[in-house]
Amino acid sequence: MTPIKSLDELIERLKGNGIKSRVAVVLAQDENTLGAISEAVDNGLVEAFMIGDEKKIVDKSKAEGIDPSKFTIINISNDIAAAQEAVRMARNNEVDMVMKGLINTDKFLKAVLDKEKGLMLPGAVMSYVCALQIPAYRKLLFISDPAVIPFPTLQQKVAMVGYSVKMANRFGIENPKVALISAVEKPTESMPNTLVDATICQMAKRGQLPACTIDGPLDVFLACDPKSVEIKGIPTPVDGDADVLIFPSIEACNSFYKGLMLFAGAELGGFIQGTSKPVIVMSRSESAKSKLYCIATASLMAQSNL
Amino acid sequence: MTPIKSLDELIERLKGNGIKSRVAVVLAQDENTLGAISEAVDNGLVEAFMIGDEKKIVDKSKAEGIDPSKFTIINISNDIAAAQEAVRMARNNEVDMVMKGLINTDKFLKAVLDKEKGLMLPGAVMSYVCALQIPAYRKLLFISDPAVIPFPTLQQKVAMVGYSVKMANRFGIENPKVALISAVEKPTESMPNTLVDATICQMAKRGQLPACTIDGPLDVFLACDPKSVEIKGIPTPVDGDADVLIFPSIEACNSFYKGLMLFAGAELGGFIQGTSKPVIVMSRSESAKSKLYCIATASLMAQSNL
Repeated sequence: MTPIKSLDELIERLKGNGIKSRVAVVLAQDENTLGAISEAVDNGLVEAFMIGDEKKIVDKSKAEGIDPSKFTIINISNDIAAAQEAVRMARNNEVDMVMKGLINTDKFLKAVLDKEKGLMLPGAVMSYVCALQIPAYRKLLFISDPAVIPFPTLQQKVAMVGYSVKMANRFGIENPKVALISAVEKPTESMPNTLVDATICQMAKRGQLPACTIDGPLDVFLACDPKSVEIKGIPTPVDGDADVLIFPSIEACNSFYKGLMLFAGAELGGFIQGTSKPVIVMSRSESAKSKLYCIATASLMAQSNL
Repeated sequence: MTPIKSLDELIERLKGNGIKSRVAVVLAQDENTLGAISEAVDNGLVEAFMIGDEKKIVDKSKAEGIDPSKFTIINISNDIAAAQEAVRMARNNEVDMVMKGLINTDKFLKAVLDKEKGLMLPGAVMSYVCALQIPAYRKLLFISDPAVIPFPTLQQKVAMVGYSVKMANRFGIENPKVALISAVEKPTESMPNTLVDATICQMAKRGQLPACTIDGPLDVFLACDPKSVEIKGIPTPVDGDADVLIFPSIEACNSFYKGLMLFAGAELGGFIQGTSKPVIVMSRSESAKSKLYCIATASLMAQSNL
């Protein structure tokens, strides 16, 4: 498989393969979610189960010029009950992924995280990986974690590497180049993350990580810019050509991608990792386009599990 | 004074005012530094004192097509002695700023930080502020701290706000809008920086900060994008129109600006704060253009002290 280099290319590939993922949406009555799901249905990417107040979903769809008959509507107006139904459907293999609509994130995740009836894999770390499409970069850049783990421990960072490598693999990138991001390239006790990064590289050497080319600590220049590598003369196998950036904190990853979405025309597709089926959670302020890309990314991963 | 909206506009303003700052450069024999200083001299911004091995400076200048007679060369080839001489000149008011050339950063800063003969103001916090020029943003964005303080404490963050507000003021921005950056807008103990941010806002209310409009915690979208403020309906006086972003860690600030320099065409001008005279420290991999902007930014601040 040749690597998928952009999120639009991903959508083209999924259109072409004729497989439809089944998605359950919790409280679907908001514009961006309806728009994204509608486009995903029209493109033959998904079959949509819209859980929520039927009248609101129908009315809001019509107001947006969307024909509600393209969805299967499941009339449950209570938010918690709607989330529980979506999770139940995923557990019973009636859908391939679940997506948050106009429900509060905490309530939605409570149903996902429920120990008995939720979607978490036993002992798994919950984290978030995005495929970031940056017009000025030559390929997709997978980043983690912009949204779930505040300050990853060694064990959590290893899990983040695993999820990111797996996602890159599904995009057709064998042996992805992974950069463990810091502000500096020399380990120093004043930035404890640099010691964690060096430790992970040592683990990689010993075959304790999934197959990838990993290095760190590295700054963003050394990770993504071959010219900086040349000028600084730092020997690094990532070589300014990273596929994956693993950040030391949610604050660093979140600021990085939001800066690029605002000022560099970036778009993203991503979802929560560590669950038995992909879980899509996006902020209300994300665009319909980004929501569509999230559905497409989750579809790719869900289909690969078939 | 109307606000200066770009770093090129800053250079035009400085050209027009006829004042020359005097800069001492420590080990000037590298291409980017020579190029930046030469351009600053040609534009009438500075008078340059190049400290280092005279032969190397002359030869390297000629190799770069630069006439070395435009500089005053001070022949001290030992790196530590050269740094000490630059600092001595600044203390004795023989120059208005010092700049690192091809000397190791630690050695250079040792001379700056020397308790008896250095440039630190008594009790001051050493930090770094940049003016970031992002083509897709409507004005300059001042950021701190990308390079010096790893994980600012409350006291250090207050100092960073003070330095950034002062720099914005010198660029003609009265009452700058300051956003204290996090991944979220709701204070939470799982991200202790959000509590520090809320505390700083309370201090501002009590008049314990320099004059500015400050709010936090805010994410980059709420800080810089009015549309996100509208969609999320968060009332914030920064209102998606920040002049200053104060980051929770060196890792977050460093990744943010490096991403924008690589992928959004950003350029920066900045220097070290907390010293009696501006101190310019840049990495070897920074462009000659960014080095010129640093000199210009330091000149503006030095001239304002006249």
